[in-house]
Amino acid sequence: MRECITHRVPMRDPGDVSQIAALFNSGQLVPSEVVAIFGKTEGNGCVNDFTRPYSVDALTSLFSDQLGCPRTEVPRRIAMVISGGTEGAISPHYLIFSIRKNTTNKPAVHSSSRLAIGTNRTRDFLPEEIGRITQVEITSKAISEAMKAANLDKPSDVHFVQIKCPLLTTEKIQHARERGAEVVTKDTYGSMGYSRGAAALAAGVALGSLDIANITDGIICTDRSVWCDRASASAGVEIENCEVIVIGNSAEWSGNKIISHDVMSDAIDVDAIWRALSESGLTGAPQLHSLDAEKINAVFVKAEPSSDGFIRGKRHIMTDDSDINATRHARSVVGGVVAGATGFTDIFVSGGAEHQGPDGGGPIALISQI
Amino acid sequence: MRECITHRVPMRDPGDVSQIAALFNSGQLVPSEVVAIFGKTEGNGCVNDFTRPYSVDALTSLFSDQLGCPRTEVPRRIAMVISGGTEGAISPHYLIFSIRKNTTNKPAVHSSSRLAIGTNRTRDFLPEEIGRITQVEITSKAISEAMKAANLDKPSDVHFVQIKCPLLTTEKIQHARERGAEVVTKDTYGSMGYSRGAAALAAGVALGSLDIANITDGIICTDRSVWCDRASASAGVEIENCEVIVIGNSAEWSGNKIISHDVMSDAIDVDAIWRALSESGLTGAPQLHSLDAEKINAVFVKAEPSSDGFIRGKRHIMTDDSDINATRHARSVVGGVVAGATGFTDIFVSGGAEHQGPDGGGPIALISQI
Amino acid sequence: MRECITHRVPMRDPGDVSQIAALFNSGQLVPSEVVAIFGKTEGNGCVNDFTRPYSVDALTSLFSDQLGCPRTEVPRRIAMVISGGTEGAISPHYLIFSIRKNTTNKPAVHSSSRLAIGTNRTRDFLPEEIGRITQVEITSKAISEAMKAANLDKPSDVHFVQIKCPLLTTEKIQHARERGAEVVTKDTYGSMGYSRGAAALAAGVALGSLDIANITDGIICTDRSVWCDRASASAGVEIENCEVIVIGNSAEWSGNKIISHDVMSDAIDVDAIWRALSESGLTGAPQLHSLDAEKINAVFVKAEPSSDGFIRGKRHIMTDDSDINATRHARSVVGGVVAGATGFTDIFVSGGAEHQGPDGGGPIALISQI
Amino acid sequence: MRECITHRVPMRDPGDVSQIAALFNSGQLVPSEVVAIFGKTEGNGCVNDFTRPYSVDALTSLFSDQLGCPRTEVPRRIAMVISGGTEGAISPHYLIFSIRKNTTNKPAVHSSSRLAIGTNRTRDFLPEEIGRITQVEITSKAISEAMKAANLDKPSDVHFVQIKCPLLTTEKIQHARERGAEVVTKDTYGSMGYSRGAAALAAGVALGSLDIANITDGIICTDRSVWCDRASASAGVEIENCEVIVIGNSAEWSGNKIISHDVMSDAIDVDAIWRALSESGLTGAPQLHSLDAEKINAVFVKAEPSSDGFIRGKRHIMTDDSDINATRHARSVVGGVVAGATGFTDIFVSGGAEHQGPDGGGPIALISQI
Repeated sequence: MRECITHRVPMRDPGDVSQIAALFNSGQLVPSEVVAIFGKTEGNGCVNDFTRPYSVDALTSLFSDQLGCPRTEVPRRIAMVISGGTEGAISPHYLIFSIRKNTTNKPAVHSSSRLAIGTNRTRDFLPEEIGRITQVEITSKAISEAMKAANLDKPSDVHFVQIKCPLLTTEKIQHARERGAEVVTKDTYGSMGYSRGAAALAAGVALGSLDIANITDGIICTDRSVWCDRASASAGVEIENCEVIVIGNSAEWSGNKIISHDVMSDAIDVDAIWRALSESGLTGAPQLHSLDAEKINAVFVKAEPSSDGFIRGKRHIMTDDSDINATRHARSVVGGVVAGATGFTDIFVSGGAEHQGPDGGGPIALISQI
Repeated sequence: MRECITHRVPMRDPGDVSQIAALFNSGQLVPSEVVAIFGKTEGNGCVNDFTRPYSVDALTSLFSDQLGCPRTEVPRRIAMVISGGTEGAISPHYLIFSIRKNTTNKPAVHSSSRLAIGTNRTRDFLPEEIGRITQVEITSKAISEAMKAANLDKPSDVHFVQIKCPLLTTEKIQHARERGAEVVTKDTYGSMGYSRGAAALAAGVALGSLDIANITDGIICTDRSVWCDRASASAGVEIENCEVIVIGNSAEWSGNKIISHDVMSDAIDVDAIWRALSESGLTGAPQLHSLDAEKINAVFVKAEPSSDGFIRGKRHIMTDDSDINATRHARSVVGGVVAGATGFTDIFVSGGAEHQGPDGGGPIALISQI
Repeated sequence: MRECITHRVPMRDPGDVSQIAALFNSGQLVPSEVVAIFGKTEGNGCVNDFTRPYSVDALTSLFSDQLGCPRTEVPRRIAMVISGGTEGAISPHYLIFSIRKNTTNKPAVHSSSRLAIGTNRTRDFLPEEIGRITQVEITSKAISEAMKAANLDKPSDVHFVQIKCPLLTTEKIQHARERGAEVVTKDTYGSMGYSRGAAALAAGVALGSLDIANITDGIICTDRSVWCDRASASAGVEIENCEVIVIGNSAEWSGNKIISHDVMSDAIDVDAIWRALSESGLTGAPQLHSLDAEKINAVFVKAEPSSDGFIRGKRHIMTDDSDINATRHARSVVGGVVAGATGFTDIFVSGGAEHQGPDGGGPIALISQI
Repeated sequence: MRECITHRVPMRDPGDVSQIAALFNSGQLVPSEVVAIFGKTEGNGCVNDFTRPYSVDALTSLFSDQLGCPRTEVPRRIAMVISGGTEGAISPHYLIFSIRKNTTNKPAVHSSSRLAIGTNRTRDFLPEEIGRITQVEITSKAISEAMKAANLDKPSDVHFVQIKCPLLTTEKIQHARERGAEVVTKDTYGSMGYSRGAAALAAGVALGSLDIANITDGIICTDRSVWCDRASASAGVEIENCEVIVIGNSAEWSGNKIISHDVMSDAIDVDAIWRALSESGLTGAPQLHSLDAEKINAVFVKAEPSSDGFIRGKRHIMTDDSDINATRHARSVVGGVVAGATGFTDIFVSGGAEHQGPDGGGPIALISQI
């Protein structure tokens, strides 16, 4: 049987991987078992956020040393999802996922499903495929394969699908044009949204909640009523394909951890947070007792400003602020709302939630010990 | 008997007073009864926040017209506290306080204390008095007088003391120097903190929780262990004196409103919010039912980043972010935490909490209908 | 004969019109003669820049008092162009244009053309007309009429055309949709560019440098090779029509001032600045002597980042910076380049130069005494 | 004879060292000859600018590979001065300095002094020594030694002294306190200024323009009338000592390059720029011809806002802008002013000019081919 082991460690700065190194030194973490790393770094989470590649560089150096492999092989072995933006109370941190095989750490009988993880990647996409139905179809298949590999047989076994997806650059757009191909948008920043949107729809298709027959190029980033309740997508300049991480509960896995999820309908939907907590057996509103808080290993949330400029009928200024990017506002407030419930601040809040929940809301997922 | 009437209205922009004008037109608000206005505007809340004077200008024009008095007389009749910064979910709004005399709106017997408000102002301060013990002493007396005028006889009757205080400008510092007097700091931005700190300590003295004998120049803005649990101070370039607004519950006032308060010990102290809510008879954690939320007329909170850079042992980046001012981060997260509990976002969150609560925390006060 | 009189005064803050009031008190400025005011205020120049309406409010109060007319009549008498953004060295200031009639202040024979100004306004535009050929046509006619009224008979007499134009708001877009009409874009921020672009093309048509027959909806904000060399357009939420200010030299006007212009081909095109200076008889590169600098009454420049991300082959980061808006970067650097030549910093640099010069460059115009 | 060889290459992002690698591959650059690297990266240049360590990491990896030495040895061999902030037109780039020995590339007789460079480092400083006279004395000696090693015998041979200096962190302050030692300031950001100030004064002492007998702790960062005309200091969290780079012209060096310098008295002092250019034989105001511009290998400038808030009597808003750090404004405008003269934008403009020039101004130095 396999066991999915998780660690959460702080970082002092985006280049600081000393706490991961310490886990190696203490034997708690085995380099060859690591399959995925999520990082929340203190950049602006926007175009010129160099804390993401800086963090990836530092992780790559560390794992290259530990695994004794060339730097170029590290990203092939370990899926790295670094998300910038720790506005407000959010604390910069790493989440490390490992798979340990042949464990004897069998789950108790009373609840046999345990935390399971699967990763996969698609082929590289052509520029003109990004943000379009082809990306949806191919990514959807990669997610299905990752589910199968992780023994997450039923869609309801899956609670969180992270997809890292490509974006368009000026060069790629140029290359497409030279071949006579047309891209979805010439706005490179805008292409991030299209790619995330297509990736999120792919998750919906893989999970059976969306029917591929109803999805067309025309609805991607246009029809906000179509969304997946367990998808989290982030676009990165460094990849040409989609990398997927599927997390759920499976009876084929051992350990003492489970994942649960729910969907926040807006930025202050505290009830959704508590539904997700109670699904994992955690109670104690309005805020978890610190002993319960310690049982939580990871929290994932998506945040974005509502497009109509209102939260429950009251105007917000997130989209009109030309000094602070709207996604920075959104992460800060959602980070505060979630931390208010959990009582801790090392929460993976990421922005840009196209088709990843209702307008202004987004999914929340959490991993905890039973 | 007097009744304190409150209204909360949205603003579309910092110059928009149309919703207050609408209250005049409908007869709900009587210009001559208005004694104080709080405004939460969408500026940066820092040095170059011109949404504050813009709002004051718009209010002054409106009240000058309505009262038929010169513009210069408006600020003498109405205390105006405009605070910039509606980061994250916080919704720009006005809170208008009126006093209606000889009302028959008697409180029921079972709970005879009702919302009461008093305003007052000190003499102008010399530059060298700002941020020092003289400001503490004189402001403390003005608060005591305001309490007496509002029939808030016991310190425990008072739940919120707002003080608007002066700051040092380059000109004032120059004038002091010419007279051979030395100011507390030559940093004009820094002087705002000293003035707020002295004002907050004055509230503590007036409320009997701090002993004037123990307060020296040396502890102002230095010893963070000394603080008042019901003070909220903001510094403004437009005044030379301290304006005080004291809000509490008094058996000599009528109406159906009360105020309660508590102290958040850190930015995510949701328990303190619920203590304040339950003190006013409101329950329903983790989030108020919308019917209960509608009973709340005003929420006041102070926010600031903890000076050690941590929230419950997890690092925050508020103070190290050179792109977004630390107070903007703090307002955003505290606004999210409070809105998570109340279920609405027109909350008066203001920054700069020297001696206005424990390091990283601050007072919360709320007015609601019984 | 008419004379165009100009004044340039500093402002301490966006609400400070005391220096204009002082000109009234000293008799240097006559309220009824004022026809146009340009203001450079210290906001961010973007969506949430409330220094613009704050300045307009303060000007409106002042002129309403001075002219003894209702506030609503002030904007009908005086064209007000307030542009936010004084990044870097740019100094906040007002430029006031007056027309004095029947002056005996005749120009000397050797150069008979003198500073002339004309203002005009179009009818209100329907939302679906904004940013389209209809706006170009109608605005072009208004500019031609203003030229005629100012005795600027030949296009070459005109050196600067300022157009203030409307933008789309969510409400306007909604209204259009209800009538079955389609607007040029649903992005309200983007509509500012379309409106500015159409206004600039209108100036080109009126000046005969562009042929209306060659202009279609399709080229507006798309074909950057089409531009006017003397247009400066700014979009404002407060108007529904286009207001135009035409400035040139005319033999029918008296006084001792002239205007000259040139086009900067990129952000550091110092040669263009010196061509404009020498056209007005000013020499002394690399920097004007202070005595010559004092002869200059006004400088107008447009600034924008080049869309390819390069200046003379070297990469700039203006467009990729998610912390500082690209137009803020552009104003700062162009303000520095121009101030380097003139030796003073109260320069009217405005951003958003669609069809107002070559990509990355823009027009420069200056008014000086002979 | 030794020759100082310089290269200037662009970077696509702070982690991009591909253009340096290309110089290695083409043989133009020899890894073992490199002694110093200056980098201008596109971060905010303030506290949370992680583009600096990211760049250092990338350089360290590259040189560790090329030199076949451990990463920890790279900073001992090569002085790296990475300065964040490419506001406005400034183009991100690297300047690489190498020393080639036993060259036959003898200078022509008519002007025998050629570009010379020397590097050195002090011992580590105790926290309580930073920003105080001890730092001045010891750093001054290190500069003198570097001068001697570079055969820069007379102070007038030296045209630029770069010092990278330590700053105080919360940990260092704590350690000092535990030993009963008192640091110059408890404000970690403020300590950067004290350290830069002491370093700049050290250069003045080494160059004989300042007398150590007249320098006391009390004048550091207080008396702005005391400054060095050829110093450029930057503080970095990664070092405990001062690293110095001295650049000048020496008859003992060969090659075809020289360095010249001057002092800008304010942010728009174009005359000073042209004095420095003409000192190197370059003319052509108002802007260098592109053929002359290509002769320039490096430009170094310091920028800071004037502390009185004015430039030649006109107010600037750099210090009052709470959205954009004052140093970002200053770099942008000075970058524009200098690029206006040189005609190119890859200029090393750095902020924070305590004792490195008159208030609001700073030194400019440039390296060019004869």
